[in-house]
Amino acid sequence: MCRFLAYHGEPVYLDELVCAPTHSLVHQSLHAEEAKTETNGDGFGIGWYGDRPEPGLYRDVRPAWSDENLRSLSRQIRARTFFAHVRASTGTATTRANCHPFGHERHLFMHNGQIGGYSRIKRRLESLIPDALYDARQGSTDSEALFLLALANGAAEDPVGAMTRTLATVRALMTEARVEEPVRFTAVLTDGDGLTAFRWACDGQPPSLYWRETRTGLVVVSEPIDGCRTGWQVVPKGATLVARAGQPARLIEAGERAGRIAA
Amino acid sequence: MCRFLAYHGEPVYLDELVCAPTHSLVHQSLHAEEAKTETNGDGFGIGWYGDRPEPGLYRDVRPAWSDENLRSLSRQIRARTFFAHVRASTGTATTRANCHPFGHERHLFMHNGQIGGYSRIKRRLESLIPDALYDARQGSTDSEALFLLALANGAAEDPVGAMTRTLATVRALMTEARVEEPVRFTAVLTDGDGLTAFRWACDGQPPSLYWRETRTGLVVVSEPIDGCRTGWQVVPKGATLVARAGQPARLIEAGERAGRIAA
Amino acid sequence: MCRFLAYHGEPVYLDELVCAPTHSLVHQSLHAEEAKTETNGDGFGIGWYGDRPEPGLYRDVRPAWSDENLRSLSRQIRARTFFAHVRASTGTATTRANCHPFGHERHLFMHNGQIGGYSRIKRRLESLIPDALYDARQGSTDSEALFLLALANGAAEDPVGAMTRTLATVRALMTEARVEEPVRFTAVLTDGDGLTAFRWACDGQPPSLYWRETRTGLVVVSEPIDGCRTGWQVVPKGATLVARAGQPARLIEAGERAGRIAA
Amino acid sequence: MCRFLAYHGEPVYLDELVCAPTHSLVHQSLHAEEAKTETNGDGFGIGWYGDRPEPGLYRDVRPAWSDENLRSLSRQIRARTFFAHVRASTGTATTRANCHPFGHERHLFMHNGQIGGYSRIKRRLESLIPDALYDARQGSTDSEALFLLALANGAAEDPVGAMTRTLATVRALMTEARVEEPVRFTAVLTDGDGLTAFRWACDGQPPSLYWRETRTGLVVVSEPIDGCRTGWQVVPKGATLVARAGQPARLIEAGERAGRIAA
Repeated sequence: MCRFLAYHGEPVYLDELVCAPTHSLVHQSLHAEEAKTETNGDGFGIGWYGDRPEPGLYRDVRPAWSDENLRSLSRQIRARTFFAHVRASTGTATTRANCHPFGHERHLFMHNGQIGGYSRIKRRLESLIPDALYDARQGSTDSEALFLLALANGAAEDPVGAMTRTLATVRALMTEARVEEPVRFTAVLTDGDGLTAFRWACDGQPPSLYWRETRTGLVVVSEPIDGCRTGWQVVPKGATLVARAGQPARLIEAGERAGRIAA
Repeated sequence: MCRFLAYHGEPVYLDELVCAPTHSLVHQSLHAEEAKTETNGDGFGIGWYGDRPEPGLYRDVRPAWSDENLRSLSRQIRARTFFAHVRASTGTATTRANCHPFGHERHLFMHNGQIGGYSRIKRRLESLIPDALYDARQGSTDSEALFLLALANGAAEDPVGAMTRTLATVRALMTEARVEEPVRFTAVLTDGDGLTAFRWACDGQPPSLYWRETRTGLVVVSEPIDGCRTGWQVVPKGATLVARAGQPARLIEAGERAGRIAA
Repeated sequence: MCRFLAYHGEPVYLDELVCAPTHSLVHQSLHAEEAKTETNGDGFGIGWYGDRPEPGLYRDVRPAWSDENLRSLSRQIRARTFFAHVRASTGTATTRANCHPFGHERHLFMHNGQIGGYSRIKRRLESLIPDALYDARQGSTDSEALFLLALANGAAEDPVGAMTRTLATVRALMTEARVEEPVRFTAVLTDGDGLTAFRWACDGQPPSLYWRETRTGLVVVSEPIDGCRTGWQVVPKGATLVARAGQPARLIEAGERAGRIAA
Repeated sequence: MCRFLAYHGEPVYLDELVCAPTHSLVHQSLHAEEAKTETNGDGFGIGWYGDRPEPGLYRDVRPAWSDENLRSLSRQIRARTFFAHVRASTGTATTRANCHPFGHERHLFMHNGQIGGYSRIKRRLESLIPDALYDARQGSTDSEALFLLALANGAAEDPVGAMTRTLATVRALMTEARVEEPVRFTAVLTDGDGLTAFRWACDGQPPSLYWRETRTGLVVVSEPIDGCRTGWQVVPKGATLVARAGQPARLIEAGERAGRIAA
């Protein structure tokens, strides 16, 4: 289980959300409250959109709480859309390539959760990734595989549909391999011009997800960064939160799509 | 506050004490129980005596819990005397050079605690280290400075006396600089042929220290590695535990030396 | 192109071969002479057999020439069989998981060379690795994929046959994908009780490989570690060098097996 | 010997100078031409001035040539003043804290060269750094000590005078300790609003230094980044190059100040 934060709106310095708040993401790397694991020290990453269409990425294997580079970058970088993630590994190695967010061309993706029994479907799932995207794979996490499969499934044009198709494929492989552990999937995807945030699990127990409209933009988090829940809205189980530039964020409720995955 | 373990006796594999026990040092890096900080993820180190007079050292900046090298080395290395340490920084950077144990020629040293108001006496304290040892300084911690000063004060021949003189110097500089924070010092020193373990604080609140004679040798720890206190003896506040090859460990009680430091 | 060294014989300290010689492997990490790239600074690794059947592994992403841990470990560790490797990446990321040697249960493997046009056959090649071994994959190099495939092909019982079958599979996939770049493969495989060293390329230009029987055992290297060729024998192109405990090393010439790969 | 680059002028992306040119600084990390060492792989760093008065810093211990974070940051960050440095250690450990540029409040400093016989004057030199700056010391290089001493000597108001006084102090300590090796000092200092670049050595053999006015600003380099010397001017031995915002760069020749150091 990991902790993450996504922002989309008027440009703000990253440290206003990542480092400064009392229960900031950097603080959560050591003291998460709503996660399975209190410590999220298996690497971290930030991804942001500056003046270029492709995002910047800074990821490292150290804990976020002691990384002086992260602190300095967060004070300097101002972005309209950015992701930040602190990682608690569910088994894969602590390498930069396994740290979120994952980037591919204009897209960023980060994930909190896990594909149950992944070792039993890993080979079959990965072989579904088309060659061009397969070669872009840098690490060995289930999360990166989900991201590349979603891109292959059309996430650039239709994030919600593509992710629904991807999770349906995962479920089918799990059923075939008689995996009984659940898949849990709380995640955010962006192309810089909007956010799509997912909260779903096949057993109805997806990791927590909150959102809030601030004076400058939309903030989506694993758990509130101010340490209290006032002012934060919960993304309901099974729902998807969609934000496009210049429009208010909008929730797509579970009924509209989860059924398709479970089917 | 850090966590550590020292062993001296018949050669054993490091992982028997460092990785395998239910509340092993690697486990404590994530879930310490008697420390101020539950997480000790700011680097780690092992030092051991093999067939050569000088110890081997492996230190790194990652958390111990995810380091595959540490796991592999601990399974392979068998030693008659070894130290292991997981670090929770009290402010200095997470670099290899700031990780314990510190090695110099035949000696190893590791420390749990802190010199209060160190920034106010740092320069004066460090300028007391003789040139040859000053040049051996690799990092910027108070712990390494204490080690080098103790060596300058004759720790090779008289560990207890040298450390007493060193701490008296520290106290004098603190008084001069009107530092009110305490110095706390739980530490172990070795030349490979024995151990000297210290537990002292100027305010009477030194970090915890336990010891135990096992079937093969002496184990000294910040907190019991089996998660229960049965079978472990507490090193009393102010006392020093001394072990020499072929002799039973022996406690030097507070009255015998602490007065000299406080004076 | 990388540089490597393998040893098999009476136990010796690693630093006698890895660090101390005038043109040692650590020296070659900065100043290789027979390699395509003079600098081999994209990580390194050592693997060795101590008292346990499984080898120990220490790999890191820094250059070997500045790694104080490597220096210390090489002075302490004595082994009957060991591998050391300094890496010059041909494109994949510098992560520990991409550093040689690769270990799996009792086996170690390291490689110098490259599968031409790997991105075009990667997915198909990797999907041939059986599930159990597929899950053991930690990195993203062609070298690790070759190792796992060779194990799947029976390398534990028949190293030469298994590697011949593996390379034949690679060649078939390359032909199918119309890859014109060559596959070059200079590599060593061990289970601790012997060595098998391969030197082959489909275009007849495999990387260099030398061997020598010293007073204590067999040394196999990318280039001589004393900076001169006297006393070193070249492993001929296409040949395989086989050493089993207690027997003199023996060359299997090209004609005996290469044909099968090319076929 | 290291390689570095400094820029001051209209904001440009870092990668235009750091990564993209044919003989860019990243290229020089592997293939320097005018340095004592061809490889500069012992860490690197960038420092830049964005929208805040204090600079940002990104430093790491890996070689610059393989660092994906550096590549990504250099593509995203645009700055009016920035430093970039690739390090070839002259003996001190490869830690982030030993990587250039060094930052303190509004200032950045980077250095190519060495204080001869530093181990023999280190303690005396460092004890001259006032407490407040002494506590800001993070690493163990002679370069960082020079920077902090220069700040103590008034580098904020009078960079040239402060550095002259600092080098005179170094020379005095060297004479006292009968050091015969030279001090060589090619360095750049900035507060974000200008640059001061020094080229001096007590034996008349300072490392190379070049400069050029481009369409957008001033570039100062260890060696030309386009691989040819056309268009680049040499900073003469003993001279200092001074650039202030809105004014053309100006050379202060050796005669004007070097005498004072040598005295």
